[in-house]
Amino acid sequence: MASKNASKSKRAKPPRPRRSGKTGLPAGSLVYLGERKTEHAAITLIEYSPDELKETRFESLADCHSCAPLLPKVWLNVHGLHEPEVMAEIGRRFKLHPLVLEDILNTDQRPKVDDYGDYLFLVARFFDHDEANLTVTSEQVSFVIGHDFVLTFQERPTGRFDPVREWLRADKGRIRSLGCDYLAYALLDLVVDRYFTVLEQVGERSEDLEDALMAKPDAALLQTLHQLKRETLTLRRAIWPLREVINTLVRNEGRFFAPETQLYLRDIYDHTVHLIESLEAIRDLIAGMLDIYLSSISNRVNQEVRTLTVFAIIFMPATLISGIFGMNFKAMPLLDAGNGFLIAIGLMIGVASTLGLIFWRRRWIG
Amino acid sequence: MASKNASKSKRAKPPRPRRSGKTGLPAGSLVYLGERKTEHAAITLIEYSPDELKETRFESLADCHSCAPLLPKVWLNVHGLHEPEVMAEIGRRFKLHPLVLEDILNTDQRPKVDDYGDYLFLVARFFDHDEANLTVTSEQVSFVIGHDFVLTFQERPTGRFDPVREWLRADKGRIRSLGCDYLAYALLDLVVDRYFTVLEQVGERSEDLEDALMAKPDAALLQTLHQLKRETLTLRRAIWPLREVINTLVRNEGRFFAPETQLYLRDIYDHTVHLIESLEAIRDLIAGMLDIYLSSISNRVNQEVRTLTVFAIIFMPATLISGIFGMNFKAMPLLDAGNGFLIAIGLMIGVASTLGLIFWRRRWIG
Amino acid sequence: MASKNASKSKRAKPPRPRRSGKTGLPAGSLVYLGERKTEHAAITLIEYSPDELKETRFESLADCHSCAPLLPKVWLNVHGLHEPEVMAEIGRRFKLHPLVLEDILNTDQRPKVDDYGDYLFLVARFFDHDEANLTVTSEQVSFVIGHDFVLTFQERPTGRFDPVREWLRADKGRIRSLGCDYLAYALLDLVVDRYFTVLEQVGERSEDLEDALMAKPDAALLQTLHQLKRETLTLRRAIWPLREVINTLVRNEGRFFAPETQLYLRDIYDHTVHLIESLEAIRDLIAGMLDIYLSSISNRVNQEVRTLTVFAIIFMPATLISGIFGMNFKAMPLLDAGNGFLIAIGLMIGVASTLGLIFWRRRWIG
Amino acid sequence: MASKNASKSKRAKPPRPRRSGKTGLPAGSLVYLGERKTEHAAITLIEYSPDELKETRFESLADCHSCAPLLPKVWLNVHGLHEPEVMAEIGRRFKLHPLVLEDILNTDQRPKVDDYGDYLFLVARFFDHDEANLTVTSEQVSFVIGHDFVLTFQERPTGRFDPVREWLRADKGRIRSLGCDYLAYALLDLVVDRYFTVLEQVGERSEDLEDALMAKPDAALLQTLHQLKRETLTLRRAIWPLREVINTLVRNEGRFFAPETQLYLRDIYDHTVHLIESLEAIRDLIAGMLDIYLSSISNRVNQEVRTLTVFAIIFMPATLISGIFGMNFKAMPLLDAGNGFLIAIGLMIGVASTLGLIFWRRRWIG
Amino acid sequence: MASKNASKSKRAKPPRPRRSGKTGLPAGSLVYLGERKTEHAAITLIEYSPDELKETRFESLADCHSCAPLLPKVWLNVHGLHEPEVMAEIGRRFKLHPLVLEDILNTDQRPKVDDYGDYLFLVARFFDHDEANLTVTSEQVSFVIGHDFVLTFQERPTGRFDPVREWLRADKGRIRSLGCDYLAYALLDLVVDRYFTVLEQVGERSEDLEDALMAKPDAALLQTLHQLKRETLTLRRAIWPLREVINTLVRNEGRFFAPETQLYLRDIYDHTVHLIESLEAIRDLIAGMLDIYLSSISNRVNQEVRTLTVFAIIFMPATLISGIFGMNFKAMPLLDAGNGFLIAIGLMIGVASTLGLIFWRRRWIG
Ligand SMILES: [Mg+2]
Ligand SMILES: [Mg+2]
Ligand SMILES: [Mg+2]
Ligand SMILES: [Mg+2]
Ligand SMILES: [Mg+2]
Ligand SMILES: [Mg+2]
Ligand SMILES: [Mg+2]
Ligand SMILES: [Mg+2]
Ligand SMILES: [Mg+2]
Ligand SMILES: [Mg+2]
Ligand SMILES: [Mg+2]
Ligand SMILES: [Mg+2]
Ligand SMILES: [Mg+2]
Ligand SMILES: [Mg+2]
Ligand SMILES: [Mg+2]
Ligand SMILES: [Mg+2]
Ligand SMILES: [Mg+2]
Ligand SMILES: [Mg+2]
Ligand SMILES: [Mg+2]
Ligand SMILES: [Mg+2]
Ligand SMILES: [Mg+2]
Ligand SMILES: [Mg+2]
Ligand SMILES: [Mg+2]
Ligand SMILES: [Mg+2]
Ligand SMILES: [Mg+2]
Ligand SMILES: [Mg+2]
Ligand SMILES: [Mg+2]
Ligand SMILES: [Mg+2]
Ligand SMILES: [Mg+2]
Ligand SMILES: [Mg+2]
Ligand SMILES: [Mg+2]
Repeated sequence: MASKNASKSKRAKPPRPRRSGKTGLPAGSLVYLGERKTEHAAITLIEYSPDELKETRFESLADCHSCAPLLPKVWLNVHGLHEPEVMAEIGRRFKLHPLVLEDILNTDQRPKVDDYGDYLFLVARFFDHDEANLTVTSEQVSFVIGHDFVLTFQERPTGRFDPVREWLRADKGRIRSLGCDYLAYALLDLVVDRYFTVLEQVGERSEDLEDALMAKPDAALLQTLHQLKRETLTLRRAIWPLREVINTLVRNEGRFFAPETQLYLRDIYDHTVHLIESLEAIRDLIAGMLDIYLSSISNRVNQEVRTLTVFAIIFMPATLISGIFGMNFKAMPLLDAGNGFLIAIGLMIGVASTLGLIFWRRRWIG
Repeated sequence: MASKNASKSKRAKPPRPRRSGKTGLPAGSLVYLGERKTEHAAITLIEYSPDELKETRFESLADCHSCAPLLPKVWLNVHGLHEPEVMAEIGRRFKLHPLVLEDILNTDQRPKVDDYGDYLFLVARFFDHDEANLTVTSEQVSFVIGHDFVLTFQERPTGRFDPVREWLRADKGRIRSLGCDYLAYALLDLVVDRYFTVLEQVGERSEDLEDALMAKPDAALLQTLHQLKRETLTLRRAIWPLREVINTLVRNEGRFFAPETQLYLRDIYDHTVHLIESLEAIRDLIAGMLDIYLSSISNRVNQEVRTLTVFAIIFMPATLISGIFGMNFKAMPLLDAGNGFLIAIGLMIGVASTLGLIFWRRRWIG
Repeated sequence: MASKNASKSKRAKPPRPRRSGKTGLPAGSLVYLGERKTEHAAITLIEYSPDELKETRFESLADCHSCAPLLPKVWLNVHGLHEPEVMAEIGRRFKLHPLVLEDILNTDQRPKVDDYGDYLFLVARFFDHDEANLTVTSEQVSFVIGHDFVLTFQERPTGRFDPVREWLRADKGRIRSLGCDYLAYALLDLVVDRYFTVLEQVGERSEDLEDALMAKPDAALLQTLHQLKRETLTLRRAIWPLREVINTLVRNEGRFFAPETQLYLRDIYDHTVHLIESLEAIRDLIAGMLDIYLSSISNRVNQEVRTLTVFAIIFMPATLISGIFGMNFKAMPLLDAGNGFLIAIGLMIGVASTLGLIFWRRRWIG
Repeated sequence: MASKNASKSKRAKPPRPRRSGKTGLPAGSLVYLGERKTEHAAITLIEYSPDELKETRFESLADCHSCAPLLPKVWLNVHGLHEPEVMAEIGRRFKLHPLVLEDILNTDQRPKVDDYGDYLFLVARFFDHDEANLTVTSEQVSFVIGHDFVLTFQERPTGRFDPVREWLRADKGRIRSLGCDYLAYALLDLVVDRYFTVLEQVGERSEDLEDALMAKPDAALLQTLHQLKRETLTLRRAIWPLREVINTLVRNEGRFFAPETQLYLRDIYDHTVHLIESLEAIRDLIAGMLDIYLSSISNRVNQEVRTLTVFAIIFMPATLISGIFGMNFKAMPLLDAGNGFLIAIGLMIGVASTLGLIFWRRRWIG
Repeated sequence: MASKNASKSKRAKPPRPRRSGKTGLPAGSLVYLGERKTEHAAITLIEYSPDELKETRFESLADCHSCAPLLPKVWLNVHGLHEPEVMAEIGRRFKLHPLVLEDILNTDQRPKVDDYGDYLFLVARFFDHDEANLTVTSEQVSFVIGHDFVLTFQERPTGRFDPVREWLRADKGRIRSLGCDYLAYALLDLVVDRYFTVLEQVGERSEDLEDALMAKPDAALLQTLHQLKRETLTLRRAIWPLREVINTLVRNEGRFFAPETQLYLRDIYDHTVHLIESLEAIRDLIAGMLDIYLSSISNRVNQEVRTLTVFAIIFMPATLISGIFGMNFKAMPLLDAGNGFLIAIGLMIGVASTLGLIFWRRRWIG
């Protein structure tokens, strides 16, 4: 029982959100399905125009109540989704549909994009490779993309959006002169780039495992193999729909993304196709490894059985000869001869050598 | 024969409706294909307007004959489909096509939606996880969705629609002010939510089985594995077409569902996609388990054959030596020497140890 | 050689039509590809109006020559296709394209529907489950559906269309008032319903086989398994295109089928989808059985090899001990002691018991 | 080395055209990729009108230079493609694009149809079943279909188009009154009909192999199985695109094929679908045979291992008993008893019988 | 550890570009992801009109700064992409989008074509078969196709475009009179033709491996098999999207390619389809080889186990008989008889011969 639990914790399955707990609640009920964090939700508001940038960080909900945006373009980022009141307040400010708020809190969404007329609602996932447990984890990141605002929602503070914050502060690539659509693109690009890192780590673990399997096929590696296979399935379930999401944005010209930004979205689309190919290559590698493992095992059985065959057959006649000369007959040839023993031993060696030669010629030995 | 029947009943296959019995009957023949229940059909009529709600429960068909709806929106729910006269009467009242009535009684329908001009006819399934037999069961639930009425038909009373009844009574989420399309949505949402519960239970059983297989691969578990696989196939046959049904409703704008309700249907659509992904993940898990099981078995054979190999090869030379010194030659070396026996035993131990060392170096031992 | 022929006849392959014999003939050559029957072709003509019904059965071709239809709606059914002159005459009367006549005689057509402007030509198959040989057989049934006539062609008289004949005679469901399109629907419904019966029989044989395999995996059952698999493939090749045929009719509104009849065709379409699902479920079951069979076999090898391992290892040391005390050394311990024999036997039992205990603890025994 | 070459020639792989030799040549370079034949190219010109037919056979290129068609409809057939000058001359006469001429000479084309405005260019393959080597071979046949001419190109004279030549001479089916499109159809029909013959031969070899495998699974049959599998793959690569070619012609109404001829093309289309089904059925049969073969092999191992198990276990105790009574202890029970030997033998037989009974009950014997 | 590294280097994996290093950089950052070469970038400019041709080769960036094209059609080829300043300068001259420059430097692009309004941007790959390491390598080649210029970018100088250079110099096929679109076609054709060479080499290695496997299935060949499988996967990932790229060009009529050139693109399209079929045929061959290998292995185990069975069973009774006559009973039959020994030996030979005969009849021997 103890070892069973141990192996369970070793596989390090993340606690899955349980949807069944929401059965019977009306649509739009704000129930956070992720793990409850102890800290407060953290809200960061960045307002900017080509010439100015204003950053505000709210420590509590009360602060948030009293402030109104001063500059034309707004990026509001929220960390920590376990306080439904905060979400409800944001929903009121930006006129968000209850289903949008519900989806932000249901953190097991698959990537998707929904058009709500006044804004786009987009869900994606940030992946991480847990070096300690050798597993991948992920958290939901939600975007609300309006004409003059971008809202982003994350389960916990990760600093993954920091590069874009730096570009805004330094106005790198004139990002402050471009619209909110370009800001949304830049943030999505960070989400997509994150997958390259995770895929490279999974790919490296796959190749390490392959080398280990080539060196010595071991039953313990089979478990690792299945763990890797499951991780690639998890990644697959995130990347394939993400590609469709980006594709929808690319084709959806003019409504929320300017033609110039479309070109950049097409670039991200290329990245997602590239990610899918890398992932499928890893999956092919893993599938091939299972074949190698299984045929190695059956090959080893083969060689060991053959060794037994050869040894048994070589010893059998000698053992029979010794048995024959151990019989208690009164009248038996050779028993009284002086070189009888040597003749018997010679007979044994002769038969064994002949068999050995036959097996060597058949390449069953050596 | 007894054990065969036992194993049959253990697998707990639900009695399947036999379509072949309907061959040669004209279209629209009202023959109930499910299990015949003993109780009467139960009809519940809920009429409502934004301000009022009237609930009536008919005990017999006669009661049903005399009543006419008083309020603008009507929800009629029927439990128990084995009384064709009741169905025929409802058909006359709501001008239902004979094929609709036939489909309601053919309780092995796959989920579908048909547009009959004046109303939509929709079939779905309520799933249950039978804890005693560790199997999933399902029953058909049919919807007729008109502009000012919703009819629902279930095989037996389950109380699954009770939450919506409560919302209507309490006017939660202003459900009474919204149209019959929203009521239909709310009922469909209950159908879809039910799958989350069942999938979580099947998923848990899959993971329990995986843990058991990891701990000790056992032929008995293989049967459970195939039972689970078959259940996921059953669920698959229900969920995939259900997604298509909801998708049809989402795209079918304006005829029976108001634009606002479309958004809610899109939410259910997300749920069905989520369900399909969860189900496929469970199926991948099960497929992986079969691989693990089979390779564990072949691995065990491998190790046992190797153990035999090593033991046999270690014992064989010693046995031969004992045979040699048991031969009855007059003139044999060592026989008369005082330490002959010890030399022979030493020879045996020496050869056996040398072989043991060779196998230990090859890692065939330990 | 005899047993080979026996197994061949046991598999009961139906004689396949040989298309290659038609190479080099001009298109529209009337060559019947089925088995040549000895009886005459039988032609039944049913003419009807809402009020009248006239049934004529032609015994010979000459009778057919002299008659002309009197009532507005006509159903001509032909049994036996081996008399090309009959077919040619019918073709002249109803102005059928030579390719239609050719297709009627090529009785290995896959289900299809072709629009010839003045009429639809439709091919389907009637299936049968041969209880004696435990195999499925099928024969082609062809429909020509015009605005005021329906022609049906069958290879031999089966009585499968009798229910519709009865409805026409009794004017059940007012079938005589409805158009020829409804008659065509009613006949197609009989074709589709037939599949339910056959699928149920195949499904039952599959489940019986599964029970037999569970009870005792046997090489003989493997042959049955492959026979069943092949039958499901045969059914698959008939049902999948049949669904497409019906689907074409459903979408092809207004030309040959009135809107009201479309609803009925949609009902048959549901049936074909249902059939496909049942068939795929049976195929999944069969695929699962092969897995069970193969893993049962490998599991049995496993257990038998283990038994050998355990026995061999338990006996080997005892045999060696007996050999050691059978050596002919002058000076050997214990030989002269009074309890030497018992000590030796005790040693044997002790070593064997110890090994037995070790194996029992490893669960290799019991 | 000798046996390797032998097995290579046995597989009888046709010399494959090598495309790489054309790298760096400009488009339209006329290089024949097939096997170089020694005979001259043979050109047959058939000109016809409803009332007349003129056949000319050119022995050398010079003859071809001086002649011009006299009748409105022309069919030019060329055998032997290894003389680029002949091809270039034909290209000039019929204004063919250099890419068309190149494709005619590249005889490893997959079936396709290209619209060049003034004519259609169509490539297909004639298959043959080589009875001696038990393999399929194929050669390319190219069609150029204009409004008043049809050109056909074959690698060598096969006589496969002779039936159409006979119809033209005899004006069978009034083929001379119909357009060049009907001539093209008639020739295509011959190409398609050829596949039926080849598929029947492959199908028969598959069934023969199945019977042989059922009778006695043999490693030599495995090679035949893979040869057959490869042939079905070759056929598949020819038939699937051919179906698409015909389908393109069927949909491409009015440009080169009159509506009446469309009906005939639809008939060929049916044939290609039928061919694909037959081919896939053969492939399923072959896949099933591999399963049967592998499980037969593993089943045989199973039975032989079991036989060994039973024999070894039955002999082991008897051998031990003989060893025990062969020990040289002074004081041993039974040795001096008169019936000691019989008791020992009885003990051996008793233990062996008991074990035999146990195994018989477990059905491991008999 | 040493052998692990050895096997790693043996597999000769090319260093993969690491995308993760670009995370957090703004779009259009010019970072070369391939291997850094030591030589300078080499730029070759070919300007031409129907009558003239001017070739210039720039040794350093400074030379490139001062020159402007004199003739109407321009082909600029760049070898070596590791100098971002060169790329930036070219980008300024030809007004290329930063994303185009970025893609040229990201040399792990999958084949694609993007329309940037003023020019097409196309990425493909040149493949090579490394004879020494028996593996395939590839490098990216990028095209920018404008109305009067073609830019090509390669990672290193390979001379693969030399044939087109020769055609331009000799005005072969009047290439100088045709537009830049024909030049782009001619270069693309070289890219596609390259695949034929590589596929033929991979195909030959596959057939060599098959012959080796047929001759003697060996565990070492399995590794080669998996190496080949992986190479075909690499080729697949390059060829399938390349087909789509060419298909896009074929359908994209009139914008950058004249109708006449479309015909030539369609020819390349045929080539890519042909390549895909050849590749899939190789992949089928490889898949079949794995089957043959695995069944050969299991077949060999089978025969060796059988040999053991037969030998063991033949020796066992003889060994038992010798044991029986070696027992030390006082009163034993035959011991004192003169021919006792011969009778015993005869008994042994008799039993062994009988068993041998039985096995020979069952065909377990010979
Ligand atoms: Mg809900
Ligand atoms: Mg919901
Ligand atoms: Mg994502
Ligand atoms: Mg590797
Ligand atoms: Mg996801
Ligand atoms: Mg890019
Ligand atoms: Mg019916
Ligand atoms: Mg029906
Ligand atoms: Mg359902
Ligand atoms: Mg688990
Ligand atoms: Mg269902
Ligand atoms: Mg939602
Ligand atoms: Mg024909
Ligand atoms: Mg035909
Ligand atoms: Mg049919
Ligand atoms: Mg069952
Ligand atoms: Mg069929
Ligand atoms: Mg129905
Ligand atoms: Mg095995
Ligand atoms: Mg070329
Ligand atoms: Mg070319
Ligand atoms: Mg062809
Ligand atoms: Mg057969
Ligand atoms: Mg081909
Ligand atoms: Mg036909
Ligand atoms: Mg980036
Ligand atoms: Mg980028
Ligand atoms: Mg490429
Ligand atoms: Mg080969
Ligand atoms: Mg590539
Ligand atoms: Mg070509």
